[in-house]
Amino acid sequence: MVNPLLSDRNIAFLLYELHDAEALCALPAYADHSRETFDLFLASVRKLARDELFPAYKPMDELGPRLENGRVKVHPAMRELWPRFGELGLAAAVLPAADGGQGLPLLVYTLATGYLMAANCGAYGYVGLTVGAAHLLHAFGDDYLKREVMPKLHEGRWSGTMCLTEPQAGSSLSDVQTRARPVAGGRYLIDGHKVFISGGDNDVTENVVHLVLARIEGAPAGIKGVSLFCVPRLRYDDGDAERGTGGDAERGTDGDAERGTDGDATSATAAGGRRSARLIDNDCTPTGVFHKMGWRGLPSIALNFGERGDCVGWLVGEPNRGISYMFQMMNEARLMVGMNGAATASAAYLEALEYAKTRPQGRPLDAKDPRTPQVPIIEHADVRRMLLRQKAIVEGSLALLATTSRYADLAAHAPDAEARHRAALLLDLLTPVAKSFPAEKGFESNALAIQVHGGYGYTGEYLPEAWLRDQKLNSLHEGTTGIQAMDLLGRKVVAEGGAALGALGQEVVATIQRAQAAGVPPSWGEALAATLTLVGELTLHLGTLGLAGEREAMLLHASDYLDLFSTVAIAWQWLAQAAAAREGLSREPATRDFYEGKLAAAAYWFATELPRAPQLAALCRSGEESFRAVTAAQL
Amino acid sequence: MVNPLLSDRNIAFLLYELHDAEALCALPAYADHSRETFDLFLASVRKLARDELFPAYKPMDELGPRLENGRVKVHPAMRELWPRFGELGLAAAVLPAADGGQGLPLLVYTLATGYLMAANCGAYGYVGLTVGAAHLLHAFGDDYLKREVMPKLHEGRWSGTMCLTEPQAGSSLSDVQTRARPVAGGRYLIDGHKVFISGGDNDVTENVVHLVLARIEGAPAGIKGVSLFCVPRLRYDDGDAERGTGGDAERGTDGDAERGTDGDATSATAAGGRRSARLIDNDCTPTGVFHKMGWRGLPSIALNFGERGDCVGWLVGEPNRGISYMFQMMNEARLMVGMNGAATASAAYLEALEYAKTRPQGRPLDAKDPRTPQVPIIEHADVRRMLLRQKAIVEGSLALLATTSRYADLAAHAPDAEARHRAALLLDLLTPVAKSFPAEKGFESNALAIQVHGGYGYTGEYLPEAWLRDQKLNSLHEGTTGIQAMDLLGRKVVAEGGAALGALGQEVVATIQRAQAAGVPPSWGEALAATLTLVGELTLHLGTLGLAGEREAMLLHASDYLDLFSTVAIAWQWLAQAAAAREGLSREPATRDFYEGKLAAAAYWFATELPRAPQLAALCRSGEESFRAVTAAQL
Repeated sequence: MVNPLLSDRNIAFLLYELHDAEALCALPAYADHSRETFDLFLASVRKLARDELFPAYKPMDELGPRLENGRVKVHPAMRELWPRFGELGLAAAVLPAADGGQGLPLLVYTLATGYLMAANCGAYGYVGLTVGAAHLLHAFGDDYLKREVMPKLHEGRWSGTMCLTEPQAGSSLSDVQTRARPVAGGRYLIDGHKVFISGGDNDVTENVVHLVLARIEGAPAGIKGVSLFCVPRLRYDDGDAERGTGGDAERGTDGDAERGTDGDATSATAAGGRRSARLIDNDCTPTGVFHKMGWRGLPSIALNFGERGDCVGWLVGEPNRGISYMFQMMNEARLMVGMNGAATASAAYLEALEYAKTRPQGRPLDAKDPRTPQVPIIEHADVRRMLLRQKAIVEGSLALLATTSRYADLAAHAPDAEARHRAALLLDLLTPVAKSFPAEKGFESNALAIQVHGGYGYTGEYLPEAWLRDQKLNSLHEGTTGIQAMDLLGRKVVAEGGAALGALGQEVVATIQRAQAAGVPPSWGEALAATLTLVGELTLHLGTLGLAGEREAMLLHASDYLDLFSTVAIAWQWLAQAAAAREGLSREPATRDFYEGKLAAAAYWFATELPRAPQLAALCRSGEESFRAVTAAQL
Repeated sequence: MVNPLLSDRNIAFLLYELHDAEALCALPAYADHSRETFDLFLASVRKLARDELFPAYKPMDELGPRLENGRVKVHPAMRELWPRFGELGLAAAVLPAADGGQGLPLLVYTLATGYLMAANCGAYGYVGLTVGAAHLLHAFGDDYLKREVMPKLHEGRWSGTMCLTEPQAGSSLSDVQTRARPVAGGRYLIDGHKVFISGGDNDVTENVVHLVLARIEGAPAGIKGVSLFCVPRLRYDDGDAERGTGGDAERGTDGDAERGTDGDATSATAAGGRRSARLIDNDCTPTGVFHKMGWRGLPSIALNFGERGDCVGWLVGEPNRGISYMFQMMNEARLMVGMNGAATASAAYLEALEYAKTRPQGRPLDAKDPRTPQVPIIEHADVRRMLLRQKAIVEGSLALLATTSRYADLAAHAPDAEARHRAALLLDLLTPVAKSFPAEKGFESNALAIQVHGGYGYTGEYLPEAWLRDQKLNSLHEGTTGIQAMDLLGRKVVAEGGAALGALGQEVVATIQRAQAAGVPPSWGEALAATLTLVGELTLHLGTLGLAGEREAMLLHASDYLDLFSTVAIAWQWLAQAAAAREGLSREPATRDFYEGKLAAAAYWFATELPRAPQLAALCRSGEESFRAVTAAQL
């Protein structure tokens, strides 16, 4: 059986049984939609994922990108795939129709993208980055950028990137050194080095639009002096005369031609079709391709801006506010990373499940006769343990991502301000969890998928080893797990006097009530309530330390706190799924197996994971400081 | 600083402070040795590891083996490395001098091999397999095999392999189908397919000696009908006349020449130097090279025996006892895998430690001024947490491996039978833990080393990503973690009425006394004693289920039991190390940092890991059966 990547039945469950996705259509923003339009969108995305993206995954993993004559060559399969994304209108799917979008709820869109990521995370990466860039321009760009750049991203002709990281700064964005010097026409000359730029160059899309953090000359040091710029790989030469850099631009074009980028002439014609200006080289030079352990379909490159002094950038929004803009995009990006973690674990789980059903090996413990046939390995309880654990992680993650995406929809479009604010609090609170849990536990889940495959799992004969390599990135990019932990404990749970945690408590109570009504074992709801109380008390204790100025003590066990909080959040999601499953069982007992599976995974989580909470809470509270006290010389 | 791979100071600590390696020299078997000879051996091995193996690691990872014209070509660096192993006499290092060995204790040898594995696990793999094959021949081979084959393995001219796995059987060795038909001269014709044969062919060693599980015609079904054979890639043609297969042999030789194995003529001359017989092809045909995610220096191949009906095997030991022989080797192999896990995690830990000391990024939590310089990331508490956790896993694993190896030495050479038996019980008990803990937690440790490197850790610019790929094999080969769990709970802790667990209890009590005397916090010893009691009670409970015939219920939580048992075993090793560190501090306070680091890691384990034990024990006892009850259709 071909790997379905995500379970369609489960996605329908998350949308229409765990949540009531159709209820969103009562909001004006989604009034054009219905279950039918959601399902149509899902069907198109699934088809693309299964019929086109997935078959290209292994070839793209095997032949990574390379730098040739100053340009990045990606796998030729991307030439086929890239236009397909455009046909589905993915880059603008969640934007209002008035802005050229499809007005889809993030709830539906997020789950749909899971198929694409599970099928081929590298190929989808081009889209994800383009969406991020387009959203930034939509939110903060001026008329020029919205008119000349954003539509090309929406149409799937140009692709986008995020250029944050610099070699000397890494995650420390306050140390960004790329410079921006104002020139005529309200534009800037950009000069600096960036690394780990995913999709930072390619030989597929007509143009690449970089959204670049840089520092305007004379700006304050630190975060508050960083601005955001739009820096396309190719720029229209219409403004060059104003700036008086026509000569440079010509030179740029020549240089580009010398470097053998024969596709550019065509691009210029195509992109400039409806206007007289042609596209010329904008002095963004790839200097290296990182050899990554996974995600090999998507190049990650080092990029120099302004080597020849002719790299033009357009300021996005106000000067010195780049970081706050970028963080608006970053929250979306973090949900995307979380979905990638869930999707990558899902594909591997479903692969391992199929393998376990069909691979004969060994006999039941009580079968003494070696002449009896071997049984499929799924008959061994420990194999089912590994599979159920994967299911609990994968479907727990997907449920949390669905729930968080729904809060994003409500934060943007709920009818009254209070409801929007409350949803925004929950979105902010859950984002670090929805980013890091699928990345960290998804990695464990991916390793279990290899384990189910035994020795074969270690080889390229099966895909789980490739998915494990892909998964490892998710704990690193868009903020490492350590950074998510600091964000959760240092900002989110203590914001507005703990308002978000209070709102979460109300949500959990509602879930417990739903579970009770549905006939879920009461002990689960009681355990969850007790643990949430524990988390609340712990948070108060740690928050008090913070208020007393002992910020280091407050955050000492931030990683353990994140582990604790995630365990509880996923238990909440499993309680909610158990409730929906019980409801389903009484509504349509014919599809028993699906619902029983949900209840089994919920039981597993409540028996195996939630009981870890008291020890984790005690550890966080203890102030245990072996690692704070240890010195570099002692390690 | 170049990566030291393992800490020399720590290895000395394990040998001479945690244990008293010199005391072993009082045993007759080790009477020729002293600390000086141990240290000389260690120094030679270190030098080989650091000067030759490690520089070849990355090239060998980048260019894996390939099948060409029916022969496997490995990385050319192996041609340089292979003779170096022979010069050190590694293949016979632990054998008595009378058998051509160096008579080294396994304690010293195991730790020494850690350097080789940390430097280049693939290259060392050829040696490890050769040692295993030579030991099997030493223990069970007849005079012919000991005279004609074993010395060539000891001299490092021929290499060895273990041929257990078949495509249809995997870990289920009772389903081995390779056949052996007796022919004249007490030999057998071998016919079958094996997969995952590490080092199964290469273009470096003069000959490859396969130790093959096969079934003699008419043998009983199952485990009790499996025999062990010695099947060299090239065989002497001296016996062929007796068997009347001379013609086949000639054909074999011709076929070999046709397949372009131009090295064979030389090999035949060299290997047959002291006798008239020449080496001819023995019909062992590589049919494929597995593309592995790591260990790319060591080919893993599919191998057909007897495609042309001319594959001769020599029976090793008695018929139908192959599995028990193989398991003698397997116990050594499992310690080797454990050491590989520890070594692979060690190299990555030391790499991450150096990176953290030298990579500036970010500022302390209370530093508000972005104009102050960035600090090395080791200044961030969460980075130190990741490093201390790696240290606790790596050095805890190494200590357990040292302790287990010492039991192996005592099991073989203690003066009285009772002491030997007691040591053998402890060796058997701890082997599944010493195999699986470094593999499983080592994998987590390797992932943390990537995490410390941030985005760079995901790229080939640093080595942690390669080490993570290497590490994943260790939970799979020589018995998966699930199989280790069944071995521990289903056999080892219940053997002889729980005698091994009783012996372990005595060892732990002795450690607690040592720790008390040394001034280690008494709470650590108390916590360990209480947890061991918990494990004892749980084991009694589960063993009683087994005696009542409820074997499935007994073993349901075997994996959780292994996790629990390992956590306690490592706590024991950390208590012992803390005791030795305290003793060291009062003896030589000048080298304070090393000992303080030990105490910090011990504190970390007792605060963070040992407290997990009650929840794990409760889970094991609960009979929680979500995964036993769940069906394939529900997953």
